[in-house]
Amino acid sequence: MSNSKFPRRIALALMCALILAAAMIPGLAEETKAPKYVFMFIGDGMGSPQINVTQYFAGTRLNPDSPVPVPAPLSFTGFQNVGIMTTYDATSFCPDSASTATSMVSGQKTLSGVLNFNIELTEQFPILTEYVKASGKKVGVISSVSLDHATPAAYYSKSISRSQYYDIAVQGLTGTTLDFLAGGRFLQPDGSDGEQINLFDIAKNNGFSIVETPDEIRALNADSGRTLAMVNDPDNASAMQYEIDRVRKAAEGQDSVKLSEFVEAAIRVLDNDEGFFLMTEGGKVDWSAHANDARTAIDDVLALSEAVQVAIDFAAEHPDDTLIIVTGDHETGGLTIGFAATAYDTHFAYLQNQNISFNDFDGVITRLRDSGADFETALTEIEKAYGLTAEADQGLTLTEDELARLHTAFDLSMIPKADRVIAAAEELAYGGYEPLSMAVSHILNNKAGVAFTSYAHTGLQIPVYASGVGAQEFSGSYDNTDIFYKTMGILGLDY
Amino acid sequence: MSNSKFPRRIALALMCALILAAAMIPGLAEETKAPKYVFMFIGDGMGSPQINVTQYFAGTRLNPDSPVPVPAPLSFTGFQNVGIMTTYDATSFCPDSASTATSMVSGQKTLSGVLNFNIELTEQFPILTEYVKASGKKVGVISSVSLDHATPAAYYSKSISRSQYYDIAVQGLTGTTLDFLAGGRFLQPDGSDGEQINLFDIAKNNGFSIVETPDEIRALNADSGRTLAMVNDPDNASAMQYEIDRVRKAAEGQDSVKLSEFVEAAIRVLDNDEGFFLMTEGGKVDWSAHANDARTAIDDVLALSEAVQVAIDFAAEHPDDTLIIVTGDHETGGLTIGFAATAYDTHFAYLQNQNISFNDFDGVITRLRDSGADFETALTEIEKAYGLTAEADQGLTLTEDELARLHTAFDLSMIPKADRVIAAAEELAYGGYEPLSMAVSHILNNKAGVAFTSYAHTGLQIPVYASGVGAQEFSGSYDNTDIFYKTMGILGLDY
Repeated sequence: MSNSKFPRRIALALMCALILAAAMIPGLAEETKAPKYVFMFIGDGMGSPQINVTQYFAGTRLNPDSPVPVPAPLSFTGFQNVGIMTTYDATSFCPDSASTATSMVSGQKTLSGVLNFNIELTEQFPILTEYVKASGKKVGVISSVSLDHATPAAYYSKSISRSQYYDIAVQGLTGTTLDFLAGGRFLQPDGSDGEQINLFDIAKNNGFSIVETPDEIRALNADSGRTLAMVNDPDNASAMQYEIDRVRKAAEGQDSVKLSEFVEAAIRVLDNDEGFFLMTEGGKVDWSAHANDARTAIDDVLALSEAVQVAIDFAAEHPDDTLIIVTGDHETGGLTIGFAATAYDTHFAYLQNQNISFNDFDGVITRLRDSGADFETALTEIEKAYGLTAEADQGLTLTEDELARLHTAFDLSMIPKADRVIAAAEELAYGGYEPLSMAVSHILNNKAGVAFTSYAHTGLQIPVYASGVGAQEFSGSYDNTDIFYKTMGILGLDY
Repeated sequence: MSNSKFPRRIALALMCALILAAAMIPGLAEETKAPKYVFMFIGDGMGSPQINVTQYFAGTRLNPDSPVPVPAPLSFTGFQNVGIMTTYDATSFCPDSASTATSMVSGQKTLSGVLNFNIELTEQFPILTEYVKASGKKVGVISSVSLDHATPAAYYSKSISRSQYYDIAVQGLTGTTLDFLAGGRFLQPDGSDGEQINLFDIAKNNGFSIVETPDEIRALNADSGRTLAMVNDPDNASAMQYEIDRVRKAAEGQDSVKLSEFVEAAIRVLDNDEGFFLMTEGGKVDWSAHANDARTAIDDVLALSEAVQVAIDFAAEHPDDTLIIVTGDHETGGLTIGFAATAYDTHFAYLQNQNISFNDFDGVITRLRDSGADFETALTEIEKAYGLTAEADQGLTLTEDELARLHTAFDLSMIPKADRVIAAAEELAYGGYEPLSMAVSHILNNKAGVAFTSYAHTGLQIPVYASGVGAQEFSGSYDNTDIFYKTMGILGLDY
């Protein structure tokens, strides 16, 4: 085609069209605009089964008279972008929270138990929160468990062992990454030898305001500055309460801050012209799934869902500036919706009878042991807390076999812990937990039609839900290390 | 802005730009173009755990000397579009294959056991394959299990009970929907009363060519016309072999057609100017998961993955015309990657020792029973088929407890089936299957670090993988009924 046959105004129109068209293709357009606000939510131990069980439990509770099964959506299950990620680490297909958080925050695989160090333990990894901070954003970390636990720790520290709690916390408090750290407390606030400087003094010396009461936490605002916000419950030395216990105690008048309120506080404290990155961990999903306590895990998934809703509401006000990612680090417990004895039936309504976590029921058992209670007294406490009954013809009537299992577990639980002899069969049956709590949980789970296979983490791949600016990058199948690369790419950060 | 300040050539350029830009936005562009070829693959009972276990088993087998865990991708796990769908039906959160296939092919929920009828059993649903056929495309259905089984049946028939096998098959053979039906055979080829017309005569009377040998099946081509293609194995009256058995017997010289070869044959027979819709079911993933036989399920996932690869290769030649969807109908067995006794360890290499399905091992057990064999002889057969050994210090050395469990199961398996007394404990331990086969599978699974909780289907949500024209519609979270609506929308079909 000769130039003379190609009029100038058509050439101009086509050039213009190409430029405009390129600008309108979503992928290209979004490369030029990074989200100002990034919310990363991690349900520790929250795999697809935990999310699914929660949808079915919540749907059953909301629709008690429905003749057909009805699931309830969670805040994030409607996100348009969904991915599935593998979580194995350099030690095992069944990884731990240190290696998986390392993968998501650094893009690297490492050994179980290691935080942001390479497999040879010789080199530290640069991490997402450092890049984000250097780019001008503020950084916040929230966890419902201890602030020096593996998942929150990976977002602000590096350690060859996740168990070096004091050193990890010191890194967070003396480093420059964190503007907001909130949720549970510390496992070793005074260090391991008692001669070290208390973490709260270190926090104050590094410019952190320390707030510990619900009123103080709810009053946090843009003028609060660097903030260390922690619950201070008499029954929980170093973590927030299980949500099921918080709800029960709230009904009794004991006020505690919810996970969602910490997210609200974080937004108030962190919002600024450059934006922020906020990682929020629902850590007690994992702790309850380790203990095979299905209902307690469900309530903590619901608490996380409510916390995500705060971010969704925030995103509604900042739709062009916000990215929300919700995922788990690994599945815990081998939870599923189906048990050999219930076959195709489920009875999620049975789980509504439970009003206490295994952890608080351990406290009930301690009181039973200290008072020399008999099995009948224990059964009364079990009925009060779980609805399981020795009375005939109830949905939750205990069979003879189940009563025998409870009695065996009761007898073991009434022996002082130091005097117990735990054989392999008991280890398999109770996983190192209080025998009576475990026996009760297993029986209630199985009557409801749910079951666990393990007291450890499993190797199941994990769903990722994403919404907002750049969220389409999280569609598809990938590895947990890709969370780092995708997030960095969306933020336009070099590494 | 006045017209005089807005030159005509710029106006022209902008209009042109808008038209071009609109054409370049993926969503808008693709609405105007429906895929000519649609491949739907359903792994029956294939949930996220089955896919994940297969990736880890295959990766371990491919990388025996790797110091770190390595998964292997399956043909479809790299598809860019991933969704997660709920599968509950109108009977239960743990649905069956009839109701779930009904949901995917009709967009409606119904009761477990029902094929394309409403909950009241008064009205039939119009189904996707009927719409597709009416639009001019050819329709094919392949299943590795019986052709009148629930999943394939839902793609060509309607019945108030999935058990009406003969009537279902008659609908398929006398109806106008099917151009290609292949895989296993029929459960009731002569009907239930023996007076009915044999299905093969009905097929011939309705213009089907019937092919039953590997050579005939491999020779199918564009001139074959309406085709009924079935395996004809001496050991399997009404289904294809389990892949693990096919592989073993192929090594012994027994030639059988693979699932992937049926997909190749379907493409040759069905390809035409209007295109086709082909549903392929990997039905034996479900059957082996019901029997808690992890390794056999893995091999059938691999067979399905190989069958999908045929579609991927076809799509590479027709990239602008092909849509591939891969999913499961529900999860079976409550499979997970983790067991209480192995905790954070897995030993996928142990599963490489198994070379037989539970089904074929049932045949070994029958021979042991018929010959009055002793437990030692049984142990020799178990070692040959599964690698489990009574010898000391091997990876698969049986513990005393495991030997005792095998002996108990052996004793029960040696009693003629009609004379066995099965108490609740045995029902829970063996799920109605041959006791010794089940005990062996459970022990091998658990040593490998995998476990099942049920002999039935579970309520777990299921991943969907999609590639090609319109595939982005399958991203996100949705219900299995949406498979119908999304596919219809992509095909531009009204309902």
